[in-house]
Amino acid sequence: MTRLNRHATSPRGPSPLPDDVTIARRKNAVRVWFEGLRDRICSEFERIEDELQGTHRDKAPGRFERQTWKRERDPSGGDRGGGTMALMRGRVFEKVGVNVSTVSGEFSPEFRANIPGTAEDPRYFASGISLVAHMRSPKVPAVHMNTRYIVTTRAWFGGGSDLTPMVPHEPDRKDFHAALRAACDAHDPGYYSRFKEWCDEYFFLPHRGEVRGAGGIFYDYLDGGEFDRDFAFTRAVGEAFVDVYPKLVRRHMNEPWTVAERNHQLARRGRYVEFNLLHDRGTKFGLMTGGNVEAILMSLPPEACWP
Amino acid sequence: MTRLNRHATSPRGPSPLPDDVTIARRKNAVRVWFEGLRDRICSEFERIEDELQGTHRDKAPGRFERQTWKRERDPSGGDRGGGTMALMRGRVFEKVGVNVSTVSGEFSPEFRANIPGTAEDPRYFASGISLVAHMRSPKVPAVHMNTRYIVTTRAWFGGGSDLTPMVPHEPDRKDFHAALRAACDAHDPGYYSRFKEWCDEYFFLPHRGEVRGAGGIFYDYLDGGEFDRDFAFTRAVGEAFVDVYPKLVRRHMNEPWTVAERNHQLARRGRYVEFNLLHDRGTKFGLMTGGNVEAILMSLPPEACWP
Repeated sequence: MTRLNRHATSPRGPSPLPDDVTIARRKNAVRVWFEGLRDRICSEFERIEDELQGTHRDKAPGRFERQTWKRERDPSGGDRGGGTMALMRGRVFEKVGVNVSTVSGEFSPEFRANIPGTAEDPRYFASGISLVAHMRSPKVPAVHMNTRYIVTTRAWFGGGSDLTPMVPHEPDRKDFHAALRAACDAHDPGYYSRFKEWCDEYFFLPHRGEVRGAGGIFYDYLDGGEFDRDFAFTRAVGEAFVDVYPKLVRRHMNEPWTVAERNHQLARRGRYVEFNLLHDRGTKFGLMTGGNVEAILMSLPPEACWP
Repeated sequence: MTRLNRHATSPRGPSPLPDDVTIARRKNAVRVWFEGLRDRICSEFERIEDELQGTHRDKAPGRFERQTWKRERDPSGGDRGGGTMALMRGRVFEKVGVNVSTVSGEFSPEFRANIPGTAEDPRYFASGISLVAHMRSPKVPAVHMNTRYIVTTRAWFGGGSDLTPMVPHEPDRKDFHAALRAACDAHDPGYYSRFKEWCDEYFFLPHRGEVRGAGGIFYDYLDGGEFDRDFAFTRAVGEAFVDVYPKLVRRHMNEPWTVAERNHQLARRGRYVEFNLLHDRGTKFGLMTGGNVEAILMSLPPEACWP
């Protein structure tokens, strides 16, 4: 939900919306997919909790707790949707939130200028999944993944995933990017380089002159003219995530770590907080549109420091 | 350095600037005052470090470390000033920064619209002191104090101080406000109520529906027509701070505290981070104008959590 960006140029789009029944079917299909992906991710992360052999194996394995929330109805009594937060505070995953939400409403005038298809009609629909994992071990990278489907008088997908290692680790970076690249390449040979660059530009802290981590992909306004094709790509991004990230966690979760490494992790998390509160457009957008504060700020780390 | 605000209306100002020699003398006088106030505050805080009898008395008393920084010269080689950060990580003061800076330059076009007197001429001078203290004990309130003098084609003072208790404590709130009220009342019977309200509006987290703490005063664009009078008021704010805050610290610093109270403090500090990064205009202004990042973000707590 960002300003139009030079990376967003599509050779085909924007495509006109089809009939209401088709649109309703699409909205339902993406919601069902996001919720199913959430279930698979949560199950896999709980399995990882069970498998721990290293530090903190004396603690009980974590389990997700789910909490649903509804947005207030609009003035005429219409349903504006809501979502479910799934939060786990485990022994591998120090804090991981996997949120799904499906909301609708009208954009206020100050938002319309930046959102395609809202000049004529301020109504919107948005469904998505959003995940941030902060790990106990400084050896295990933190991660973010989010995909979404937006409908105004146009419709598009957006999302991506980026990895935040606490210390650079080339095999992790390589495997993470290879998984996302494979998802991209199967759909369009131009996607990976474009979406990787977009990610590097987006997850950048100008005041620190630093990137947030090892990057990944970021895309928005994806409307290639065929819903099925774009939806398949967004599903592929989810599949790539659920395949590769657990591998990286299992690769490192049983390695020991030092107090110095933990302190370094807490300081890196300070940078994560800076990015999310100073720069992240999703956070700002959510807070300004009266989203669920707990769900939006679930991305903040359980502990951070500014040494 | 904020947008003009309804609280800023002055019955007399804006007053035209006098001759260059007088202006130069004023700039120097405020800089000398801010630096002297910094010295007194640092000495008093170090005395407090020495006096500790409670938890952490086994640690060595903290001492301020000072670091000076210079801004890059402008393209024509002109001095754009700099400042000194004084940072102490002590046994009472977990992290306290007392910064002074005196800078000059030209505002970029996007800033001019919001800053009085810059439409005709983009040059500015700014000198100030800025302090944030995060305490080890959750029984001792955190505090912020900042006063500054700005010169464009106009000139004004701004600043204030606000208290952030970790748990509400009525005598602390009362004493803190009484000290600031006395400073205000000695100069103008209308100041306190106006500046207190301005503070409550400013230090408000809309997404949480919470005020930052117990409030205090906040003022800006103070140009009552007589430099000496306005400067005397700004000095009185500094005097009130250096008188009252150490009393509150000494009142509580030897009280024991629990792990639960400490955890509550870390969560309250999470709110402090949210305010400073999402809302504080000084932070945004500093980061956007290429200020010293370490000095600007010295306000962030040493440790925080989002439970």
